[in-house]
Amino acid sequence: MPHLHHHPMSAASRFVRLILGEYGFDTELVEVEPWSRAPEFLAINPAGTLPVYMDDSMRAIVGAGVIAEFVDETHGVLKRDRRLTAEDPFERAEIRRLVDWFLFRLEQDVTRPLARERVHKLTMPPSRGGGAPDSKAMRTARANIREHMKYVAWLAATRNFLGGDRLSYADLAGAASLSVLDYLGEIDWADVPQAKDWYQRMKSRPAFRPLLADRVRSLAPVSHYADLDF
Amino acid sequence: MPHLHHHPMSAASRFVRLILGEYGFDTELVEVEPWSRAPEFLAINPAGTLPVYMDDSMRAIVGAGVIAEFVDETHGVLKRDRRLTAEDPFERAEIRRLVDWFLFRLEQDVTRPLARERVHKLTMPPSRGGGAPDSKAMRTARANIREHMKYVAWLAATRNFLGGDRLSYADLAGAASLSVLDYLGEIDWADVPQAKDWYQRMKSRPAFRPLLADRVRSLAPVSHYADLDF
Repeated sequence: MPHLHHHPMSAASRFVRLILGEYGFDTELVEVEPWSRAPEFLAINPAGTLPVYMDDSMRAIVGAGVIAEFVDETHGVLKRDRRLTAEDPFERAEIRRLVDWFLFRLEQDVTRPLARERVHKLTMPPSRGGGAPDSKAMRTARANIREHMKYVAWLAATRNFLGGDRLSYADLAGAASLSVLDYLGEIDWADVPQAKDWYQRMKSRPAFRPLLADRVRSLAPVSHYADLDF
Repeated sequence: MPHLHHHPMSAASRFVRLILGEYGFDTELVEVEPWSRAPEFLAINPAGTLPVYMDDSMRAIVGAGVIAEFVDETHGVLKRDRRLTAEDPFERAEIRRLVDWFLFRLEQDVTRPLARERVHKLTMPPSRGGGAPDSKAMRTARANIREHMKYVAWLAATRNFLGGDRLSYADLAGAASLSVLDYLGEIDWADVPQAKDWYQRMKSRPAFRPLLADRVRSLAPVSHYADLDF
């Protein structure tokens, strides 16, 4: 069975789990601490980043965007109206722009610093930067959430799905990222009803269920995390 | 004529210029200061990042990776043995992994901090972070170059081109990134003869010429920058 090296608080890993779930892939999950830099993992991916997909022949596909393209090329193109990207190159470019927005920009501005301060620092040894959270880093990240949520709300209000008319990788990357922030109770949904409505639709999809069952040892999720009617 | 919003010290912009050059596209370059966040540019790309490609209908394609995929889908696939990526999905995944390595990892570890400290700070107003370079940030970035160059040398020594047997996006992304560092005189080529040999081949390609003619007002390039026999 193929393997996915992932971490429950990695938005990029969650994005790939949603893709595999939507396409009905059976994959074994292998949890990797993103800060561990274990030699056996670096041998697979010298960048040390998550996720990494290993197929049945143990060939590694490294990185969420690369895995997404690989799955599209080897499976998605055959799915016709269930394909998770558009047929038109311009529409595909818009979907890819949004995937990058969530996995790089939101990640850098918000998701990575909050996951680091609130989750990873609790399990990291002090030599790796573990210890008390940096309240200034958390304040900066939280100040950025509001702007990002406004953008998601605008996309959700002006389009049927974030990347266009149909469910696409843009929705999966967005929902993956927001689900990490929602686990941490960092999103004020009352402020952004259109974004909430879209996220509720995403959350109700069968592919989302495993994500809602995710737990990290060090921190329980906010009470509404797995609630479909939050 | 299509436009490319770019900056001469942006590795991602140079990567796209090399792609367009290799495929013989005629494109008008529009220089954008990456730190400016000008409202008219943010209206095209709310992320404020470079490069952005505008086609003849003024439709924007945002981000180097997205532009690379778009050009491949609309032109590359027709080029047969001159296509700048592989036909096999696994080989394409390896090429994409290396493009991401150069445009995200090398960028974060080395290229962005050095371009920021040595080039952009000279033209930025103090309110945007301009002023004297941060010597600690420069030391950290320089310490990372050596490891990255070892990896490039290893790729160049074990493969005909960085991403496999043929010239591909991996070479263009790598050469684009290293050309920014070389402009700044940050690469000690004597340490890495295989990497130097590969870069010399890249530098000799006609598509590379416009990059070798690039100058930024605030800083002249190192003396061997445009020399094909450095």
